[in-house]
Amino acid sequence: MNSIGKLFCVTSFGESHGPCVGAVVDGCPAGLALTLDDIQQEVDRRKPGAGAAATARRERDKVEVLSGLREGRTTGAPITLLVRNEDIDDSDYEKIAARLRPGHADYTALVKYGGFADGRGGGRFSGRITASFVMAGAVARKILDTLGVAIAAHTVEIGGIAARAATFDDIKTKATRDPLRCADALASRKMGELIAGVREAGDSVGGVIEGIAVGVPAGLGEPVFANLDGDLAKALLAIPAVKGVEFGAGFAAARMKGSENNDPITIKNGKIITTTNNAGGILGGISSGMPVVVRVAVKPTASIAAEQATVDVKKMEKAAIRVEGRHDACIVPRAVPVVEAMMAVVLCDFALRAGLVPRVMK
Amino acid sequence: MNSIGKLFCVTSFGESHGPCVGAVVDGCPAGLALTLDDIQQEVDRRKPGAGAAATARRERDKVEVLSGLREGRTTGAPITLLVRNEDIDDSDYEKIAARLRPGHADYTALVKYGGFADGRGGGRFSGRITASFVMAGAVARKILDTLGVAIAAHTVEIGGIAARAATFDDIKTKATRDPLRCADALASRKMGELIAGVREAGDSVGGVIEGIAVGVPAGLGEPVFANLDGDLAKALLAIPAVKGVEFGAGFAAARMKGSENNDPITIKNGKIITTTNNAGGILGGISSGMPVVVRVAVKPTASIAAEQATVDVKKMEKAAIRVEGRHDACIVPRAVPVVEAMMAVVLCDFALRAGLVPRVMK
Amino acid sequence: MNSIGKLFCVTSFGESHGPCVGAVVDGCPAGLALTLDDIQQEVDRRKPGAGAAATARRERDKVEVLSGLREGRTTGAPITLLVRNEDIDDSDYEKIAARLRPGHADYTALVKYGGFADGRGGGRFSGRITASFVMAGAVARKILDTLGVAIAAHTVEIGGIAARAATFDDIKTKATRDPLRCADALASRKMGELIAGVREAGDSVGGVIEGIAVGVPAGLGEPVFANLDGDLAKALLAIPAVKGVEFGAGFAAARMKGSENNDPITIKNGKIITTTNNAGGILGGISSGMPVVVRVAVKPTASIAAEQATVDVKKMEKAAIRVEGRHDACIVPRAVPVVEAMMAVVLCDFALRAGLVPRVMK
Amino acid sequence: MNSIGKLFCVTSFGESHGPCVGAVVDGCPAGLALTLDDIQQEVDRRKPGAGAAATARRERDKVEVLSGLREGRTTGAPITLLVRNEDIDDSDYEKIAARLRPGHADYTALVKYGGFADGRGGGRFSGRITASFVMAGAVARKILDTLGVAIAAHTVEIGGIAARAATFDDIKTKATRDPLRCADALASRKMGELIAGVREAGDSVGGVIEGIAVGVPAGLGEPVFANLDGDLAKALLAIPAVKGVEFGAGFAAARMKGSENNDPITIKNGKIITTTNNAGGILGGISSGMPVVVRVAVKPTASIAAEQATVDVKKMEKAAIRVEGRHDACIVPRAVPVVEAMMAVVLCDFALRAGLVPRVMK
Repeated sequence: MNSIGKLFCVTSFGESHGPCVGAVVDGCPAGLALTLDDIQQEVDRRKPGAGAAATARRERDKVEVLSGLREGRTTGAPITLLVRNEDIDDSDYEKIAARLRPGHADYTALVKYGGFADGRGGGRFSGRITASFVMAGAVARKILDTLGVAIAAHTVEIGGIAARAATFDDIKTKATRDPLRCADALASRKMGELIAGVREAGDSVGGVIEGIAVGVPAGLGEPVFANLDGDLAKALLAIPAVKGVEFGAGFAAARMKGSENNDPITIKNGKIITTTNNAGGILGGISSGMPVVVRVAVKPTASIAAEQATVDVKKMEKAAIRVEGRHDACIVPRAVPVVEAMMAVVLCDFALRAGLVPRVMK
Repeated sequence: MNSIGKLFCVTSFGESHGPCVGAVVDGCPAGLALTLDDIQQEVDRRKPGAGAAATARRERDKVEVLSGLREGRTTGAPITLLVRNEDIDDSDYEKIAARLRPGHADYTALVKYGGFADGRGGGRFSGRITASFVMAGAVARKILDTLGVAIAAHTVEIGGIAARAATFDDIKTKATRDPLRCADALASRKMGELIAGVREAGDSVGGVIEGIAVGVPAGLGEPVFANLDGDLAKALLAIPAVKGVEFGAGFAAARMKGSENNDPITIKNGKIITTTNNAGGILGGISSGMPVVVRVAVKPTASIAAEQATVDVKKMEKAAIRVEGRHDACIVPRAVPVVEAMMAVVLCDFALRAGLVPRVMK
Repeated sequence: MNSIGKLFCVTSFGESHGPCVGAVVDGCPAGLALTLDDIQQEVDRRKPGAGAAATARRERDKVEVLSGLREGRTTGAPITLLVRNEDIDDSDYEKIAARLRPGHADYTALVKYGGFADGRGGGRFSGRITASFVMAGAVARKILDTLGVAIAAHTVEIGGIAARAATFDDIKTKATRDPLRCADALASRKMGELIAGVREAGDSVGGVIEGIAVGVPAGLGEPVFANLDGDLAKALLAIPAVKGVEFGAGFAAARMKGSENNDPITIKNGKIITTTNNAGGILGGISSGMPVVVRVAVKPTASIAAEQATVDVKKMEKAAIRVEGRHDACIVPRAVPVVEAMMAVVLCDFALRAGLVPRVMK
Repeated sequence: MNSIGKLFCVTSFGESHGPCVGAVVDGCPAGLALTLDDIQQEVDRRKPGAGAAATARRERDKVEVLSGLREGRTTGAPITLLVRNEDIDDSDYEKIAARLRPGHADYTALVKYGGFADGRGGGRFSGRITASFVMAGAVARKILDTLGVAIAAHTVEIGGIAARAATFDDIKTKATRDPLRCADALASRKMGELIAGVREAGDSVGGVIEGIAVGVPAGLGEPVFANLDGDLAKALLAIPAVKGVEFGAGFAAARMKGSENNDPITIKNGKIITTTNNAGGILGGISSGMPVVVRVAVKPTASIAAEQATVDVKKMEKAAIRVEGRHDACIVPRAVPVVEAMMAVVLCDFALRAGLVPRVMK
């Protein structure tokens, strides 16, 4: 299915080379100030930048609204948003359709949809689909704004090159302007060089994105199966190429002692906080009021020019493949706003479930 | 909420020091051969072993059935299973209730439940709750048996000590008998020594568990929001102390080149397979027919004897705390069957959604 | 599946002649004052009364709690409640198991569960299951109390004998004490005589129950698929023997003119109300603040002593059947508290969805 | 929320005078033969006919597809369909916006959406929204075709004038061509005269629609909360103006004896059937293999020209209102294909849940 969320429910639709990619955003309270510009701005952040990692495909991605908005306010009805697919070139696709591309969902799609899926451009499996996530995230962020929740993500690692730690403000200012969405300018330069070399070689690299939400009220989520971390992980794994999710210290916590990993608790300005945040702002599935910190592992772009071993499913025999065409040698920077969007969608849903969002905005 | 699954739906209930911990397992087809022994066997695997990591709490955990089973067969009605809570000692709890335990959900529970939660023994946040997961998993495994799906998990790392790679058979035979659920006997011995030392020091360690499912038919799951990896991650993060989840190469994939990470595709015995499994058996949210491989990061036990800084919420002032009582210095081995159980629950749900499970078993 | 509700979620379990019938009530805020007596009181109202309609089966139905309650308050964890099945006599059942009972779910159960369902006493299809509804409803009512919502149902028709219209207070006082749960004493007497005659003849009768909720805040529900009337209807149709549901004027509205059916709108004490209530308190799927009024059609008890034509499924040949044993000649009065319970469960869920219920009660 | 269905999930969007009305149809297996014509045909049946009941609003309603279809086959991705809103005249609306229209959802919308709802033409509460139901239903019907399930609805009563009983074939042939969707030509003529008179008088009438599904396999649905009748009722009550739903004998069953209402069981051509169908094809929430028969009560059109008492919410004072403009004096005939559509959507979802629909069509 293509819907996520219980009270703030996002339904994604569209295929990479179909007419459009869009989302129905259901459960947004009436009266929220929301313009097409608010959404366009987020969609623009997802565009292939001028940076070293960019694809050649030109995406104009002008957001259209089909329902739920009137005179700059949400109406309470489902909000339907879309961007048209343009500048589509199917010629590469048709050539290689019978040869399964390694690292892609070609085989699983074949099993699932029996050859009927619209595989052009990756179809429903394409990174292009994340435009629908970003549009929905833009709505969620406007709601979270009213609760004082701010979200920012940044590139913390590409091809093994790690960025230095960054504050939330650094991320908001520096990472946002950096072509690789990295707050560490030096690391960003090295990452850029690495990507350039890798692209030259017809190869690709992955990386790690960190998303942070500040101002999240304590008390969102529940233990067991309404766990905030659980829904965040599920939403983030819906982003193509994400292969892992960790919270706070994450996998590093597995190598720490309890005395190191436990976050000491103290009082600051009358508020209970922890002096470290190895928990990543979530304990027992519930937000603690500390920043929610999540990191996702992004695998290297599956489409590479280098020759790979595969199978021709029509002839059912071994074959070789080179995936020609326009491909990002590294999609990490473009996935950064998508991580923010999915965090926003999930946090918004949990805020609604907790009764924190007014049914009608003023 | 405390339910997971769309067609195979598990509802967990119970609190650590309440009358019992249990689960309602809904959606199991009628006619499945299932005895209390099948379930008891799984619950027994979760018990504190004789190993170095064990807690002193004696848990008999005799499984009772309240509905859904008759004469060794499921009836098609919801199956209600429980284990009574026994050997409960609340004395430690009452002493420290006002002092928030670092690394525990005491503060988030306080915000969420306003002091009304039954915090004794961790209440709803206790590892004890995973007994309900294991009982539900036992039912799921019996269904998966009929589809030829087998699941095994093992300890791959404790306190930074990593085990050598293990085959599925190694895990089934060696890890199952190992007190630390580790297939690598040498590593297990070192882990045991580490745990002993850490316990001595009043501290704790965490680790990493790997779960593998073989025989999973290709085609389970969907892209976007019915992603198999997404639901697995959500379910695994419901296990207390899990802070990260990765599939296949996971975070390591973020450091690989596309040419390294893409799994070459080939034909073997007329079946399309990959020669490596960096994808962990899932591409585009859909199972590929290769083993589903997932790893979870388990943080070190939060309860440690060493003194920690905290806050007394009654007095709203800083305080120190030592968490006395019986605690596992390392819960990783006990979480191993729980990882298996959650994998089984999710895979069973997806098999039902795909129409693979007969409504009535023969 | 056996769960209903999005934020206030009830999972029913148990079979008529299994160990027990119970419910897991999930989503109840912590801190709600709730005792076993509160629940027992509702369960007792469902018991076969001293009235003419009563079955001979003795049901003690002492409510037990397995989780979620401590020291007279809800803990925020799922609340598990059950009543044991006692005084069970399976002898009648075994005799007739191969012969499908007309009006019962024997055949549909056979198709669905292939003979593995526990059919004794009706199994999962038995009216006995409604004990789980009533226990869950008792919790919901305690929550609704805090919002000023009161619910009462009454018998408005049995075997074609209609009661005169009754006020909400009449229902609360007179119908509650009446053996047939009818507020009109004269009609009740006639209904009683009819039932006595029908029982004598080995036959049965049905009737109509009306449920009313007052104090329901305006604004619960949504148009299209979160329609309050829709969820009420679904919940009420889960009561065995219910074959129809109507709101306000219901089917009578189909015979009215618009000028008759439209409820005139006016202002009373500064509040917008309607002077009639043909809408039954719901317009566009949303509560209007007027009393929510629903009526359900209850078919005559399917178990009758008279001989009926059927099929012996073992021999696959035509056969005759007489359903011996203890049966209510009219179950309408016993279904009255069940209608109240289901209304309470749904209204409570919608109040939570609307953010009206505090997460933690004071 | 605006979604319905578990495995076959329909999300409705759009407002009466917004850009369009549409639906995302999720869960449709890949490879289903489906053309825009298939959908257009159903949408055309919903159009205001040439009959006496028709509105003057011209609706071209040309179906557009945004996703999920390629070369006459479903791709397995969500199918997004819409019709543009044209021929919109808002002039009437603006005049009366402050005066609540009796029988409409104006007041409940005001409470829910605080004046931000797009109320023009009824907005989200308009009968126009049912165009999205019909488009989704058209997809569902194509799936049901492959299972041998056929659905037909017809007008059985308008303004108290009842049609004679009709066979399924009568409905398919006669009712479909009748301007009032009534299989009884004589009754249809009388109904038409009644409607003409009522329109003349500035008033309106309602009626009753019966929907029948034949070929429904036995075994769809479950007792308790996956009851087929429950989901059908919920879906049908989402149709504006529907105030009641009954199955089989429905409310009439409440006036029958058990010996009359129980459907005798027999064998015909080796198949177990009943000789009557008072159960309406559903017993214990499960389809029996007999035709599924449901009737819905449609209230008279709320928009009438006659003067009515109401409240001006801006001035908060009593006022009078005449609802001018183009209105159907009876919407019953136009709701007939909508009833079919909702039945199709629900039956399709239940067939998928039961594993009856192949994931990939051939």
